[in-house]
Amino acid sequence: MKNTFGQSVSVTLFGESHGSEIGAVLDGLAPGVKIDEDFIRHQLSLRRPHGKISTARIEDDEFRIVSGVFEGRTTGTPLCILIPNTNTRSGDYAKGLPRPGHADYTAECKYHGYQDYRGGGHFSGRLTAALVAAGAIAISMLKKNGISVGTHISELAGIPDRPFCNLEADIETLGDLIFPVLSSAAGEKMQHEIEAAANAGDSVGGILETAVVGLPAGVGEPWFDTVEGLLAHALFSIPAIKGVEFGAGFGFASMRGSEANDGFRAVGGRIVTATNHNGGINGGITNGMPVVFRCVVKPTPSVFTEQDSVDLKTRQNATLTLKGRHDPAIIHRARVVVDSVTALVLCDLLAGRFGTDFPDADQ
Amino acid sequence: MKNTFGQSVSVTLFGESHGSEIGAVLDGLAPGVKIDEDFIRHQLSLRRPHGKISTARIEDDEFRIVSGVFEGRTTGTPLCILIPNTNTRSGDYAKGLPRPGHADYTAECKYHGYQDYRGGGHFSGRLTAALVAAGAIAISMLKKNGISVGTHISELAGIPDRPFCNLEADIETLGDLIFPVLSSAAGEKMQHEIEAAANAGDSVGGILETAVVGLPAGVGEPWFDTVEGLLAHALFSIPAIKGVEFGAGFGFASMRGSEANDGFRAVGGRIVTATNHNGGINGGITNGMPVVFRCVVKPTPSVFTEQDSVDLKTRQNATLTLKGRHDPAIIHRARVVVDSVTALVLCDLLAGRFGTDFPDADQ
Amino acid sequence: MKNTFGQSVSVTLFGESHGSEIGAVLDGLAPGVKIDEDFIRHQLSLRRPHGKISTARIEDDEFRIVSGVFEGRTTGTPLCILIPNTNTRSGDYAKGLPRPGHADYTAECKYHGYQDYRGGGHFSGRLTAALVAAGAIAISMLKKNGISVGTHISELAGIPDRPFCNLEADIETLGDLIFPVLSSAAGEKMQHEIEAAANAGDSVGGILETAVVGLPAGVGEPWFDTVEGLLAHALFSIPAIKGVEFGAGFGFASMRGSEANDGFRAVGGRIVTATNHNGGINGGITNGMPVVFRCVVKPTPSVFTEQDSVDLKTRQNATLTLKGRHDPAIIHRARVVVDSVTALVLCDLLAGRFGTDFPDADQ
Amino acid sequence: MKNTFGQSVSVTLFGESHGSEIGAVLDGLAPGVKIDEDFIRHQLSLRRPHGKISTARIEDDEFRIVSGVFEGRTTGTPLCILIPNTNTRSGDYAKGLPRPGHADYTAECKYHGYQDYRGGGHFSGRLTAALVAAGAIAISMLKKNGISVGTHISELAGIPDRPFCNLEADIETLGDLIFPVLSSAAGEKMQHEIEAAANAGDSVGGILETAVVGLPAGVGEPWFDTVEGLLAHALFSIPAIKGVEFGAGFGFASMRGSEANDGFRAVGGRIVTATNHNGGINGGITNGMPVVFRCVVKPTPSVFTEQDSVDLKTRQNATLTLKGRHDPAIIHRARVVVDSVTALVLCDLLAGRFGTDFPDADQ
Repeated sequence: MKNTFGQSVSVTLFGESHGSEIGAVLDGLAPGVKIDEDFIRHQLSLRRPHGKISTARIEDDEFRIVSGVFEGRTTGTPLCILIPNTNTRSGDYAKGLPRPGHADYTAECKYHGYQDYRGGGHFSGRLTAALVAAGAIAISMLKKNGISVGTHISELAGIPDRPFCNLEADIETLGDLIFPVLSSAAGEKMQHEIEAAANAGDSVGGILETAVVGLPAGVGEPWFDTVEGLLAHALFSIPAIKGVEFGAGFGFASMRGSEANDGFRAVGGRIVTATNHNGGINGGITNGMPVVFRCVVKPTPSVFTEQDSVDLKTRQNATLTLKGRHDPAIIHRARVVVDSVTALVLCDLLAGRFGTDFPDADQ
Repeated sequence: MKNTFGQSVSVTLFGESHGSEIGAVLDGLAPGVKIDEDFIRHQLSLRRPHGKISTARIEDDEFRIVSGVFEGRTTGTPLCILIPNTNTRSGDYAKGLPRPGHADYTAECKYHGYQDYRGGGHFSGRLTAALVAAGAIAISMLKKNGISVGTHISELAGIPDRPFCNLEADIETLGDLIFPVLSSAAGEKMQHEIEAAANAGDSVGGILETAVVGLPAGVGEPWFDTVEGLLAHALFSIPAIKGVEFGAGFGFASMRGSEANDGFRAVGGRIVTATNHNGGINGGITNGMPVVFRCVVKPTPSVFTEQDSVDLKTRQNATLTLKGRHDPAIIHRARVVVDSVTALVLCDLLAGRFGTDFPDADQ
Repeated sequence: MKNTFGQSVSVTLFGESHGSEIGAVLDGLAPGVKIDEDFIRHQLSLRRPHGKISTARIEDDEFRIVSGVFEGRTTGTPLCILIPNTNTRSGDYAKGLPRPGHADYTAECKYHGYQDYRGGGHFSGRLTAALVAAGAIAISMLKKNGISVGTHISELAGIPDRPFCNLEADIETLGDLIFPVLSSAAGEKMQHEIEAAANAGDSVGGILETAVVGLPAGVGEPWFDTVEGLLAHALFSIPAIKGVEFGAGFGFASMRGSEANDGFRAVGGRIVTATNHNGGINGGITNGMPVVFRCVVKPTPSVFTEQDSVDLKTRQNATLTLKGRHDPAIIHRARVVVDSVTALVLCDLLAGRFGTDFPDADQ
Repeated sequence: MKNTFGQSVSVTLFGESHGSEIGAVLDGLAPGVKIDEDFIRHQLSLRRPHGKISTARIEDDEFRIVSGVFEGRTTGTPLCILIPNTNTRSGDYAKGLPRPGHADYTAECKYHGYQDYRGGGHFSGRLTAALVAAGAIAISMLKKNGISVGTHISELAGIPDRPFCNLEADIETLGDLIFPVLSSAAGEKMQHEIEAAANAGDSVGGILETAVVGLPAGVGEPWFDTVEGLLAHALFSIPAIKGVEFGAGFGFASMRGSEANDGFRAVGGRIVTATNHNGGINGGITNGMPVVFRCVVKPTPSVFTEQDSVDLKTRQNATLTLKGRHDPAIIHRARVVVDSVTALVLCDLLAGRFGTDFPDADQ
């Protein structure tokens, strides 16, 4: 299915960094859901570069919804969002010397040289703006059903944020932060590190931690379409994400079973687990506890030190020094993309489980 | 699609731990590929429990291929493999008290109590035998096309194996080991740890590291159907896997871009990267370097200490003490499942890229 | 997806005419539905050859359900049905001279000669037994939700059956008939024609007409996944079906719009149409009226007159005279296959629309 | 998957009759294919209303390709085509009284009243403009691979066109005709009938016959994804198509097997059939002969006589008299939509069979 993801609620992504528009088609949405364009704008603003820790290429992201919305609500038919590209400087890009850590070389292998190489073309992080716009609608739908999603930078350059404690309040707080951390002291240190890397012409990576609260138990499949599998499938699309772990994740490697298991407790008629090492998922299916996972974001590959490359025409060794406008870190901008992708996958899972009028809003 | 995975080459899984048979349907295989039943048997033997570090439930795994093979070769039509269950002791299982860390409770939520709860039913690791049989065929197909897959236990209870060095030789070696480690000294220590946990009625987890060599560059998609996304989607089906990382994975969080990037070099006309922090994948697409990833396997949830549970009928707190035959570690048995799932995903990707006669063998 | 059909409720088909077993995996069924093995047997008996108008190869169709059923009810996990092949005479089949009207030649082109050619292999009508067994379960689920499906031979060798009049009663009647016609006089004439063709070593085709009553309005999609499109997609799998028309079908070609349109009427608060030329579907979506369609079944290609063929090895012209046991008509046997496929598609559509607990039975 | 069709090459459709734009995303195209914008324009002109036999609403169809094309060739990444709606008169449409034969009522049932009802909204034939633009690209790809598609009106209001005779020449001829018939005398009579219907405020239907030449043998699947099934699935999306038959189609009902079978002959080393009653498809798979099928197009439901309807608010009987601009026949305009949908399905089948570089053009 390539650039389309989801079975009941699906998203199709198109566009290139330096084309006229990028966009997404969102299909399978419940009809009658109010579209909050301000919230879409807000979410896009969280993805937009800000200040010294980001690229100087800033886009207005003036989206247009060209279908699937009528009188301010979803119709239930495909919703297409377009976002024009306005601030492009194609001259910054040259073909022929693939940038290390980027998709230039693999695009060449796959598309036989016909790819639009300018600004990374279809591989550009620019396309995540369309994911964020689509995701904003998914997040709205989840919210109306009592489900919320939030992500913070849990680690950057060795600096940890404080852990999630009161999940609902923490998620609420994060929703307005451009640099999404729970401890502002940790956030300042992290931003110092990013600036230090920027000054060295270098970049940094980090870890994003996401929590979802309010999901009903019993969603997901035992084989293949596990909640973990579907989320990971979609999350690995986000440029720079190279690892996904749920609950205790790689920490399980040094635990014993007696410690790793989450015992069940009855609390006011509801069944909960005392701990949540399994991240709200057992056997691929939600257990009603918060779904918690972490994604590692590799350092932006656009660095300004001289790098080894190969001339694709002569197939001789060459060196490459990048120019242009680049991010010394994208982890804070990737956060809202993670939230968006997560919400899209959950809407798909919920609509598959409960039917195409779910998750609905206003009926 | 639930219990079916793959677009060009797909696998459909069915069965329960205590049913008459489990099985898999493998569809989209190239016609004319020799079926090596001995190799299937060998692969199944790697999954089977052995010695003190495994459960005492041992199955013969006497598989039957009931369709899709004619005169010893694939026909190109669906291949169905059946594996009977013979050694079942259903009395060991009781309904009503969900086991922590297992899918008992989520199955109840999803299937409203109609699930076959005996031995974990459809959630049982037993079903991975069918994946291994199907995967053995996929592994054979890859081998004929010069592609090999190997996995070792890179860490268990804090004990590291030696890293991969000569990949092709290491993969060759691992293929015959029941306890798949590259350093036999490390392997002995690990097995000691497993026995120690077993003696304490407890269990351990660990990390599996997989390498694939011989893949052509240019396979995978930029969005959604990335190589990482498809592999992770399938790998998270394997019971107990809670994290997947590619290349440097979570290690990227403490690297700078200048260090993380893999510079390109021309070596005898071929383009390679000097390092492989990206695990052979850029922008979701293979770059021709080995694909390398790690999966964390949580400790087996079946432990013999008293655990907290809830009576599903009364919804009152209760305690649970397991009986029966269980594995103090399944990581060494999960290894061949990882290899199998990996091979199935790669066959799907390659057939999608190069057509339904690929990866072929004997034409 | 090849041999798998359906998104929410799917069926995967495997097996060959002369293999050990054929079978189907049915996935996405609601949990808790009682399995009526007698009804499955009844449906299989409707597909089985009877008397002079059918082949002398008779199979017991002793099916086994090996997964997905526990204590007599669906579990919600994949249900695999196996049906052994017992009455095979492979000597009747020779490779090399493709039979006109059969798939021998196209199988050779697609599978490069590796196909199991005996008895048509995977292309054999034999596989419809597995579809019928799976379909019986789907029909049961629909029934519990007030939806019934029935098919009659509306025309055979120029002889028309009487049209449907009281749909529910007609469907009820048809369910028990081996030769499914509404007018027994017409049925006798048809059977005479079949015997006459059989005596001439020849075969006949005809038209099946199907009605579905009880479907809710609002199921189906405007583009691509229309009710017509999904039904036709699946129905064209049934060997020998070469045309599908809904409502007035090809009769629309000689109608004017004023005549073709179905005016709306309010009857006791329910909205119905006065006529049903559109066969219960407008814009790809059910309107609550009976869904009515017709399938043409071509004459069985197995005839005993000398036929033109080509030797696939020498690629020279040759003639072919068939031996073995064949049906002079399969339309009466195909009827229950049409009912089965229809029910499977409708279960898929309803589960997609209303969630995976629908269409359910006993909860 | 709803508004997306195709596995290897897919099309996603979006938009409404009176929205700002309609469009399509075409994914999975081989890279490097020259985009001929003039041919797209030509194809759109064949769909556009002309003269007295069509609606007075004429759109410029000034399409824009916003992604997936670089330097005049496909990149291999998703190609999005947008077509603005300019000539809309929403005042012509009122909600509340569903038009017989249209999707107004079923849309209400499915979307709970939130659908964009203006001009039929997402159900409008207007969306076929996007299919035609996408299909033009598919037709170009097929042509470069020696495959051509052509459709004529084989019958309208009882008037038959002459049959196909020299297929390649006939297809060539049809490509330039606004009213696609092989006999211009028949065409004149048909147009007279359309005008007569128009003068009576009524409309007519008819039959389209399509031929595809140049397809390789061995494409398609035995079960479910038969060539017939996939084509029919997509064709039934075209508004007003209510029946699809392949080869002799419903004519098979009055044939005997000895007559219906297509004997094989060797002609210059190639294997052909002497007749083509099976329409180029055996067992769901192409046999190398022309693929031939017919679609029935029902009379346009927009007629100007008084019709029965129901007020959706009061649920009382009501009458309805349409105003606005409507087509007395759409069959001639539907022709290029059939060609387009056919080409899209064939590109999907060929790319699935031969890999994602096929059908390619310029490499």
